[in-house]
Amino acid sequence: MGAILRLGRLELRVLDLEESVKYYTDVIGLEVTGREENRVYLKAWDEYDHHSIILQKADTAGMDHMAFKVKDIYELEKLEYKIEQFGCTISRISKGARLAEGEAIRFQIPTGHYMELYTDIEQVGTKTGTLNPHPWPDGLKGIAPHRLDHALLTGDDLKTATRFFTEVLGFKQTERIITVDGEDLVGSFLSATNKAHDVAFVKGPDGKFHHAGFYVDNWYEVLKAADILTKNDVQVEITPTRHGITRGQTVYFFDPSGNRNEAFASGYMSYADFPTITWTEDKIGAGIFYHRRELVESFSKALT
Amino acid sequence: MGAILRLGRLELRVLDLEESVKYYTDVIGLEVTGREENRVYLKAWDEYDHHSIILQKADTAGMDHMAFKVKDIYELEKLEYKIEQFGCTISRISKGARLAEGEAIRFQIPTGHYMELYTDIEQVGTKTGTLNPHPWPDGLKGIAPHRLDHALLTGDDLKTATRFFTEVLGFKQTERIITVDGEDLVGSFLSATNKAHDVAFVKGPDGKFHHAGFYVDNWYEVLKAADILTKNDVQVEITPTRHGITRGQTVYFFDPSGNRNEAFASGYMSYADFPTITWTEDKIGAGIFYHRRELVESFSKALT
Amino acid sequence: MGAILRLGRLELRVLDLEESVKYYTDVIGLEVTGREENRVYLKAWDEYDHHSIILQKADTAGMDHMAFKVKDIYELEKLEYKIEQFGCTISRISKGARLAEGEAIRFQIPTGHYMELYTDIEQVGTKTGTLNPHPWPDGLKGIAPHRLDHALLTGDDLKTATRFFTEVLGFKQTERIITVDGEDLVGSFLSATNKAHDVAFVKGPDGKFHHAGFYVDNWYEVLKAADILTKNDVQVEITPTRHGITRGQTVYFFDPSGNRNEAFASGYMSYADFPTITWTEDKIGAGIFYHRRELVESFSKALT
Amino acid sequence: MGAILRLGRLELRVLDLEESVKYYTDVIGLEVTGREENRVYLKAWDEYDHHSIILQKADTAGMDHMAFKVKDIYELEKLEYKIEQFGCTISRISKGARLAEGEAIRFQIPTGHYMELYTDIEQVGTKTGTLNPHPWPDGLKGIAPHRLDHALLTGDDLKTATRFFTEVLGFKQTERIITVDGEDLVGSFLSATNKAHDVAFVKGPDGKFHHAGFYVDNWYEVLKAADILTKNDVQVEITPTRHGITRGQTVYFFDPSGNRNEAFASGYMSYADFPTITWTEDKIGAGIFYHRRELVESFSKALT
Repeated sequence: MGAILRLGRLELRVLDLEESVKYYTDVIGLEVTGREENRVYLKAWDEYDHHSIILQKADTAGMDHMAFKVKDIYELEKLEYKIEQFGCTISRISKGARLAEGEAIRFQIPTGHYMELYTDIEQVGTKTGTLNPHPWPDGLKGIAPHRLDHALLTGDDLKTATRFFTEVLGFKQTERIITVDGEDLVGSFLSATNKAHDVAFVKGPDGKFHHAGFYVDNWYEVLKAADILTKNDVQVEITPTRHGITRGQTVYFFDPSGNRNEAFASGYMSYADFPTITWTEDKIGAGIFYHRRELVESFSKALT
Repeated sequence: MGAILRLGRLELRVLDLEESVKYYTDVIGLEVTGREENRVYLKAWDEYDHHSIILQKADTAGMDHMAFKVKDIYELEKLEYKIEQFGCTISRISKGARLAEGEAIRFQIPTGHYMELYTDIEQVGTKTGTLNPHPWPDGLKGIAPHRLDHALLTGDDLKTATRFFTEVLGFKQTERIITVDGEDLVGSFLSATNKAHDVAFVKGPDGKFHHAGFYVDNWYEVLKAADILTKNDVQVEITPTRHGITRGQTVYFFDPSGNRNEAFASGYMSYADFPTITWTEDKIGAGIFYHRRELVESFSKALT
Repeated sequence: MGAILRLGRLELRVLDLEESVKYYTDVIGLEVTGREENRVYLKAWDEYDHHSIILQKADTAGMDHMAFKVKDIYELEKLEYKIEQFGCTISRISKGARLAEGEAIRFQIPTGHYMELYTDIEQVGTKTGTLNPHPWPDGLKGIAPHRLDHALLTGDDLKTATRFFTEVLGFKQTERIITVDGEDLVGSFLSATNKAHDVAFVKGPDGKFHHAGFYVDNWYEVLKAADILTKNDVQVEITPTRHGITRGQTVYFFDPSGNRNEAFASGYMSYADFPTITWTEDKIGAGIFYHRRELVESFSKALT
Repeated sequence: MGAILRLGRLELRVLDLEESVKYYTDVIGLEVTGREENRVYLKAWDEYDHHSIILQKADTAGMDHMAFKVKDIYELEKLEYKIEQFGCTISRISKGARLAEGEAIRFQIPTGHYMELYTDIEQVGTKTGTLNPHPWPDGLKGIAPHRLDHALLTGDDLKTATRFFTEVLGFKQTERIITVDGEDLVGSFLSATNKAHDVAFVKGPDGKFHHAGFYVDNWYEVLKAADILTKNDVQVEITPTRHGITRGQTVYFFDPSGNRNEAFASGYMSYADFPTITWTEDKIGAGIFYHRRELVESFSKALT
């Protein structure tokens, strides 16, 4: 295991807090674990930490920040040093600034997004428990993903963003999309774990949020997710298909504020010696939507 | 990413080399990547290294050794030091002793099994390649697992074995089976990755091999695996079911020499902060075979 | 469409009515549509008629009768004539003798089981409705099969039973199990529809009930069924596997009175020109349990 | 069983016979069972009759005719009488006019399509056989559907077409799409079996062919089908999704001549008492593509 454990949380800005909570609990099927005046904290059924999603009442949709959980305080200090060496300014989030969280460090990554690193968060456990557990709990609702899986962001200088994630934070690049002339990097998929990606970037405006991916177990769960979306009148942007990149199975849709969500299944295992897979931009259609083999306009343009 | 990347290879002793090659290629669906007089080297379609399975012609079935791939030579040296400190005697396998491999270190773990660590092996890649790849290659045969997934071994002193893997090699214990009085450890599941297990031990004679697990993508692939076993008259020991431990989906069967194999799907993600799940021995039935809820005699007794 | 539409209902004798209702609603996931002092009426979510299962409080478990729905009163009269010609004595069940049912005719088939034919039953519809319906309703519980699928009974003279179903009732025999010498018929699978079977017989004591099969959509639903059984401490007799006969996917278990139930998926389509498939008794293991390839003692002996 | 067994064959007009044969064998995975100068005969692996698809070399794509297999010669004669009573002119196809076929009757249905009824065709059986069969044969290629499932045609007067199929041929209407004012019928789904549909019509030009549906076992097979299409550079029109109508799971694509094909899974069982499901035209989007909830222009316009 490396220093960074996983994408631990996303704080999403939403326009109508109650409508959003209803959506994230009834449709996505997350569980509310805490509430403040302007924030609601949620977790997926298979996550042990207090929350992985924070909904923040705001005037515009988007991502306030993404945060990665770090193995321990020693690794966190090492990362802090390297981040500052890279030229990022670090601020400190105090314990108690948000519910159930300890201290975190916060900084802007080269694409302008805010990112936090932390090691301390209350563990609330799961309903299946850790003693002779059943494989899944009763009473699941909605899409009921296992966990928050990854985030996709947009930015202009993906080479620098990739360098930051690989050299400073220790991620590996599992896949990349390059222009046909090989000059520019227009997509970069980065993993701190054995997953196909934990965070990814596609060329676009700095600071924008493309989607939050939630993990479901298999292709039938992707179908169930899509059925639930239609039953709940939630707009489906991309109906069930496979990604060329990651090989995962997917359905894309929007929360009530316009933040894109994904139910994502499967995808390969990656290791430190995984050879970066290259997609040339002329094949980006199949890379993103393996069956359709062409991009969808909204998929590039609808950002929050 | 930690120092140890993955279970890189198993060398299995088989009685009839040609019959075994036929089984591991036609039924399991591995690909032969090299041959020597007494050894045949194979890989699964989704593995990049030259081989993950070595079949060694021998008079008795069983496991010659299991080997974990280490991130780099520096990590390997650190591990070597810690292994010696623990009291294990290390020998050295020279580059060229086996096909496509560089140097490795070899030692006996507390349960008497031989284990190797290495960082150098020829990468032969996959048929899908790393440029605009399709998600799976044409011409797959048999069960066609993605990769070697894990090994299960038996031993007497599982507390020491667990201590060796966690303290020396940096694994985490994801699950454990304890006697009802809590005094003894009778099962220990250990992960060096984000998988539910890379190696596991159950109480039994030292030095014995229980099974090699191969990863298939989903529950339908477990069904296909079981169908293929019947079509090929291969003995199925445990028909498709779910494990309580790891939550994975499984089918167990035997190679022509009596070495147990498993086609394994799903299972949760684990991280460094994963709370070890405990099974008490009175629930071991559901832990091993979630639907049957009792052990099968052969499963404890048939070892190689 | 022929004269006989489908297996319309099974009336099962249960020892403890409330415990049984709890099981058939919470575990199987049927819906109660009517109650009398000694009977409870249930239907599956995808069935339109008032009930397909009647639980009858009784001192011994077993099947009171099975009933097939007939296309119309003209076909029912034709069948009645042929049944009497065959030598069966017909009695008449009056409208109102059971809830929501019209008149039915009742008779003993050659294996001693009671069977009814009817055309009149109240249609209560489904929760998805018939106007712009969603594919499945909210609020499903338990295994949640689509429908009652088939029944398996035991009897001594399967040749006569088969002749009755094919010549009198217009079924076709889709599969049969014969002794190796070809002299005796020890299994007979019969279909009045395009399904692989609607009713089946295996050699055994006359008048006994082997199991009621409920249809689930796919192999993942069979897994879910098996998980639910373990979560509810319901005894699973046969863990998920495939049948050779019908090719269907299956899990077997028992209701609280010891009546065997099955969750069954898939299976081929049969037509009037379907060539009867023959299994020889030496292959009956694979015919019944395709992966295990041998019978399980309880499967032959536990009858109600 | 009714008089009409099933959609027995489609004769499709294709522009380049060899390219088409390559597609229908390598991509769809049918088996060639016969060849003439201008026709190639094919069957799916799970069909017993000599062929279900005939490819006819022609100057324009489209459907030459569809043919339903009738139970026996007596039923065929009765149908012939009723068809003539309805006002259709019947011609006779002689035994031997096409390979492996006996005599057939041919006529135009109200939408101008040619249809045949027959009872006599050579049975060639399947590779799994009828004695202790395995559930699927070795050596399957491509999408490998079980069988031809249904055809969708376009026509102007769907009320008359529906009346012809229900009153003359004994089909039932399982689903229909009506204009919001209820005045016109714009879609009609018709079943001669327990399937959700055997033939269907949508409003459009008379005599045109919309698609041929091939049955695959489950949602994972739909994914596999879509993967195979991309791997073979076959145009996918509608990526994997669910139909509201029939509830089936689907992927649509085109053969080299532009004839639309579908890989179709699941769908409910229908019986003679099945209440016709009604879709109003404002919901036709969800009726056709349950997740997308709107029509795709090509889907209405690309006809052959």
